[in-house]
Amino acid sequence: MPGGLTLSEHVVHFPTGLHRVLAPAGALPQSAERLDTRAELWPDETRIRVERLNLDAASFRQLERKHTGDGAAIRAEVLEIVRTRGKMHNPETGSGGMLIGTVEEVGPQATLGLAVGDRVATLVSLTLTPLVIEDDLAGWDGRSEQVPAKGYAILFGRSIAARLPNDLPTELSLAVMDVCGAAALTHRVVSTYIAPTVSVIGAAGKSGSLAAASARAAGADKVIGVVPHEGEASLLAAAELVDAVVVADARDPVGLSTAVAAAGGPADVTVVCVDVPGCEGGAILSTAEQGTIVFFSMATSFSAAALGAEGLAADVTMLIGNGYAPGHADNALRLLRDTPGVRRLFEDRLGAERKMES
Amino acid sequence: MPGGLTLSEHVVHFPTGLHRVLAPAGALPQSAERLDTRAELWPDETRIRVERLNLDAASFRQLERKHTGDGAAIRAEVLEIVRTRGKMHNPETGSGGMLIGTVEEVGPQATLGLAVGDRVATLVSLTLTPLVIEDDLAGWDGRSEQVPAKGYAILFGRSIAARLPNDLPTELSLAVMDVCGAAALTHRVVSTYIAPTVSVIGAAGKSGSLAAASARAAGADKVIGVVPHEGEASLLAAAELVDAVVVADARDPVGLSTAVAAAGGPADVTVVCVDVPGCEGGAILSTAEQGTIVFFSMATSFSAAALGAEGLAADVTMLIGNGYAPGHADNALRLLRDTPGVRRLFEDRLGAERKMES
Repeated sequence: MPGGLTLSEHVVHFPTGLHRVLAPAGALPQSAERLDTRAELWPDETRIRVERLNLDAASFRQLERKHTGDGAAIRAEVLEIVRTRGKMHNPETGSGGMLIGTVEEVGPQATLGLAVGDRVATLVSLTLTPLVIEDDLAGWDGRSEQVPAKGYAILFGRSIAARLPNDLPTELSLAVMDVCGAAALTHRVVSTYIAPTVSVIGAAGKSGSLAAASARAAGADKVIGVVPHEGEASLLAAAELVDAVVVADARDPVGLSTAVAAAGGPADVTVVCVDVPGCEGGAILSTAEQGTIVFFSMATSFSAAALGAEGLAADVTMLIGNGYAPGHADNALRLLRDTPGVRRLFEDRLGAERKMES
Repeated sequence: MPGGLTLSEHVVHFPTGLHRVLAPAGALPQSAERLDTRAELWPDETRIRVERLNLDAASFRQLERKHTGDGAAIRAEVLEIVRTRGKMHNPETGSGGMLIGTVEEVGPQATLGLAVGDRVATLVSLTLTPLVIEDDLAGWDGRSEQVPAKGYAILFGRSIAARLPNDLPTELSLAVMDVCGAAALTHRVVSTYIAPTVSVIGAAGKSGSLAAASARAAGADKVIGVVPHEGEASLLAAAELVDAVVVADARDPVGLSTAVAAAGGPADVTVVCVDVPGCEGGAILSTAEQGTIVFFSMATSFSAAALGAEGLAADVTMLIGNGYAPGHADNALRLLRDTPGVRRLFEDRLGAERKMES
């Protein structure tokens, strides 16, 4: 709207962005077919000038396969998706990604704590973020998940964006923000026990290393890190994040629980950070009675966990890893700055990913 | 073994029954292809003389469809499954059921608290229970989930069975035991809040009515019961289990959260007891910040819950409903005895089910 005015407060708006849903009626923005991308803000919204999209890896790979790596065709399809849906929501994979940009305008009722000029990353999915691309993605060759883009995006009243810190490379900050929920929830759960034993399955990974550092910060008496092979075991040992390193296949319930027991388990808190299916039984068997399991892996099966615990008569509390907690990005960035071992593991992973891409 | 002897304690055994797994090696009994059904007990096991199997509804319906209702063919297939797998584990549906019987022998190290002669129901799934059928199911016409059977079953050291009370009809006790985990976990979660508002989605159902009664017993200040239509609303109101009855479609996030808010929400604790997919968003939106959602529905999608909470920037704790907690069956039976409204709802449901079957 000219002059930076916002839409009248008399127009109904919802912190969840429901007023931006064009179809179908009653859907939330994430499940919507199409969003309203008008640039004018409702009073609690924030507009971001876009600098770059980070497509979700599953989404990019699907596009790559479909167009057999033809960059121009991939670019054309991304433009088509954004044009028709008003958001970068791959209809095949159901996934989106995130974006980086600069705050352009803040509605008078916005409560995200952002100011015009802040350089931010959005931590809600692109699948629910109204988006307009204005440069036809001219600066992108369609060959990488990193998409330079000119345009704008809208954040709702109830949304998540984090300021990018000046003291860290953008790529490193993004990698931390991507998994920052694991640190926050681990801290919260570990704090409810007195000097507990904590087992982190996949402790040498990004979310796993943050969870391990977070467990220690929250008062864990002993942190056990589980990794799949000796290579990761050395990396994890060198990072000095855990008291014991265990090499085990997380899909093998008896193998895993035996190994965790030998390292000082069963654990009062088990944090599952490996994205492979079939880890529910092992997590349950290696957790003490009255213990808690936090499942961060998107490969977790709800019914395998529920029926598995019942089948084992296991009195454990099982949490669905919620990627959001207030302040989660800032806390995770602080943890990375304060824990050299976490930073080293992240930088190793990012280096390996760059190498694989090149 | 003759004379009621048990296998030597020198033979390795596991409370989880791993020693009974014949194939594949390393699997837990539930995921195993085939179990060892020998009648001799390892020291921590218990043998049950079987009186009746209750097949899981999904399993029975699959068999019924496959054999177009031919009872003899259904019976033959159940016998074949039990003979080849050593357990009633439908390979198509992955489900089992439970059984009723009388304790025949108790190993010297068993800790289930059972004595020879106790009439019990097993509360672990038939998918992990070694089972031998000795009468070719001669007393069953293959036309109902209720299967009169002669034979025996084995319970492991770490298992669950509950004595059937004398003061309640067997059918009623079984219905309570089937959902008793909902009462236990609801009680535990509600107790962690001070005078919370609790919303039970599907409050007129079996698990829902127990959860509502349990919430009140655990100190809820206000219990809101959500039902799908006016018919259930009247039943629920008459049962006097909740302070407010709300009619809403749990799959409609905005409709549900608006209705719950109008009844005194958002809820500090939301308990999801309806077995329909797509209730995650509504549960999240109708729960207060720092609130807890307990998902008991097997139709819950792990990723829809995890991504939904993140997409809504919702600071909520989400639990996978574990069907087991120590003492859960006895506690739920007590709740039914002490709460006439719960008992009435259960009896209504059982009556309706009988009517549908006849």
